[in-house]
Amino acid sequence: MRFTIQRDKLINGVQDVMKAISSKTVVPILTGMKMEVRKHGVTLTGSDSDISIESYIPAEDEGKVNVENIEEGTIVLQAKYFPEIVRKLPESQVDIDVDEQFNVKITSGKSEFNLNGQNADEYPLLPQVETENSFEMPIDLLKNMIKQTVFAVSTMETRPILTGVNIKLENQKLVFTATDSHRLAKREIPIPDANMTIEQVVVPGKSLNELSKILNDSEETIEISVTNNQVLFRTKHLNFLSRLLDGNYPETSRLIPDHSKTTIQIKTTPLLRSIERASLLAKEERNNVVKFTNNDDALIEISSNSPEVGNVEEQVTADKVDGENLKISFSSKYMIDALKAIEYDEVIIEFTGAMRPFIIRPIEDDSILQLILPVRTY
Amino acid sequence: MRFTIQRDKLINGVQDVMKAISSKTVVPILTGMKMEVRKHGVTLTGSDSDISIESYIPAEDEGKVNVENIEEGTIVLQAKYFPEIVRKLPESQVDIDVDEQFNVKITSGKSEFNLNGQNADEYPLLPQVETENSFEMPIDLLKNMIKQTVFAVSTMETRPILTGVNIKLENQKLVFTATDSHRLAKREIPIPDANMTIEQVVVPGKSLNELSKILNDSEETIEISVTNNQVLFRTKHLNFLSRLLDGNYPETSRLIPDHSKTTIQIKTTPLLRSIERASLLAKEERNNVVKFTNNDDALIEISSNSPEVGNVEEQVTADKVDGENLKISFSSKYMIDALKAIEYDEVIIEFTGAMRPFIIRPIEDDSILQLILPVRTY
Repeated sequence: MRFTIQRDKLINGVQDVMKAISSKTVVPILTGMKMEVRKHGVTLTGSDSDISIESYIPAEDEGKVNVENIEEGTIVLQAKYFPEIVRKLPESQVDIDVDEQFNVKITSGKSEFNLNGQNADEYPLLPQVETENSFEMPIDLLKNMIKQTVFAVSTMETRPILTGVNIKLENQKLVFTATDSHRLAKREIPIPDANMTIEQVVVPGKSLNELSKILNDSEETIEISVTNNQVLFRTKHLNFLSRLLDGNYPETSRLIPDHSKTTIQIKTTPLLRSIERASLLAKEERNNVVKFTNNDDALIEISSNSPEVGNVEEQVTADKVDGENLKISFSSKYMIDALKAIEYDEVIIEFTGAMRPFIIRPIEDDSILQLILPVRTY
Repeated sequence: MRFTIQRDKLINGVQDVMKAISSKTVVPILTGMKMEVRKHGVTLTGSDSDISIESYIPAEDEGKVNVENIEEGTIVLQAKYFPEIVRKLPESQVDIDVDEQFNVKITSGKSEFNLNGQNADEYPLLPQVETENSFEMPIDLLKNMIKQTVFAVSTMETRPILTGVNIKLENQKLVFTATDSHRLAKREIPIPDANMTIEQVVVPGKSLNELSKILNDSEETIEISVTNNQVLFRTKHLNFLSRLLDGNYPETSRLIPDHSKTTIQIKTTPLLRSIERASLLAKEERNNVVKFTNNDDALIEISSNSPEVGNVEEQVTADKVDGENLKISFSSKYMIDALKAIEYDEVIIEFTGAMRPFIIRPIEDDSILQLILPVRTY
């Protein structure tokens, strides 16, 4: 096997698949990176068995030659050394030459590396996902949906199903839901061209975070296919495969109150900054509680108290307040996460009492919903 | 005590003194930041007993009012919370008001923090350094001298004296020397106005690193004063005090060879890149050894071998080679550090045999010297 490749193309491909490679895997060969060279191009693969990433570098793309002097073959490279070597090679072209003892010679300019490779036959085959049953959506919209929900997944392994984002596709409507049982984030969008149904799958939050990092913001589309235990995200040169989480995702719709006793319309940023300041005194406590009080006027009082350190008190002016006066306490972290995810200048907060979950939504958009359970302090 | 201060001035001052404050100190009050308010301005102090930093914010500076509504007093603030609070306050002005029970009220716009302070009488007095016996030098030159030497100090506490930089001032010549006994870095500059002598003091490398971080690159001067066990660096608004290291610094001048058998003149960057690549395969080994071989022509061969991973071999072209052929092995890390410190496009390397220390200097500048002890491999 041998070929000559443009170094920048190789760097990009290597960087993408590295996201799936862990040095801590129990399957030793998975610490390596698989490289498959065919006449039409080079495919790199990395996997930690939960996530697998394939990056494809076509030999020719839009009239530009990326790979040449191709003799086909496969090899597994040491992922601990290969990426850094490629990044530091002196010239813009790289020759890679592999002999039958899996010795890998990497040459660029007057620099020559000889690395011990491994037989690619020992590398596990990736699960095949049927791509006939799939739908497409714009990449930037997918990244946005991930960003607005994934922070709310649970980080505790006590209920593994909650460490994933619940994905549903029904009646041309795609819904992402995440909850750690103390708060919930939900985002939906219409997919007019989708003529299929996904009853529900739960994708690990970690997988979605990695996917989001790899995808460039772009209006190109991504194809999503689901089988029993795998989901495949596919763009032009990238396959991103993740296992799904087993188990029943809790029914979340009944958590969401359908009426409210107090409604507050308020600018997002001033409220966010105020909550951020109120959270400063409670750095170490896990439940970093702030109090939120509204009286008869539009002045909202945000306060927090940390006996050994001191206390903080602020006022933020709401744009509109309807309904009963309210005193409620909640985790400042949850509120900060929710307000940051909303991405609109103004929000509506709907309360149904000091001990009931409350909802935060953007003022002009029903497709995003953030829900937070209060903390009992009064 | 109370005053109103420009938030950006307070942020800068706090940031500087925070560099000296450690949460791990054995003297509890030193986890705090002392604030002294006088009619002429506000002085902030932080200290971990090795390093102490005072930052002064004048009430008025170049016609601009920084501090007003001054009632004099002193307080010690909780350094864990105060900096972040100041940074996040909503308005450009901050009011600070301290009552007799050391309650600190910080107000900015509609935000009010109440922090528990401590009595400043409990804060240790900083050692007084006589500033009559002092010399001045440009700040950017001092930063440069630190950068070119401090990396070579020892990180091992077995010979504490080597964890510092040796500073000497004699006959209007200032010399910085650092060595960990495997390599040495030396830089000297003339100080024409200095009419004093510093026989030798050893300043902890850590102190010089912190000092370097605080000083802005500028052509303004810094005043340096030395007593038996302290050194004071003083700029317009900053006092930086460090303890000195006790003990005898080894005589280093006899380490430096006075003749050479092989002299190689070579471009710095290509050599540096080549050594960096050769070091990639030896990541985990502490002594990350590369071989350097010159034959009859001007081609230098750089190579490294790591049995389990592979090997690397490169050629770099020297501009001029004089003297005997040579095979020598050395730590790639030491060579990388030395070449980076030199800051010139071309260097001369002077060897006196495979087992003798060798010298690297810039081609047009005698004031910088880097010395490395080779490693026995042949």
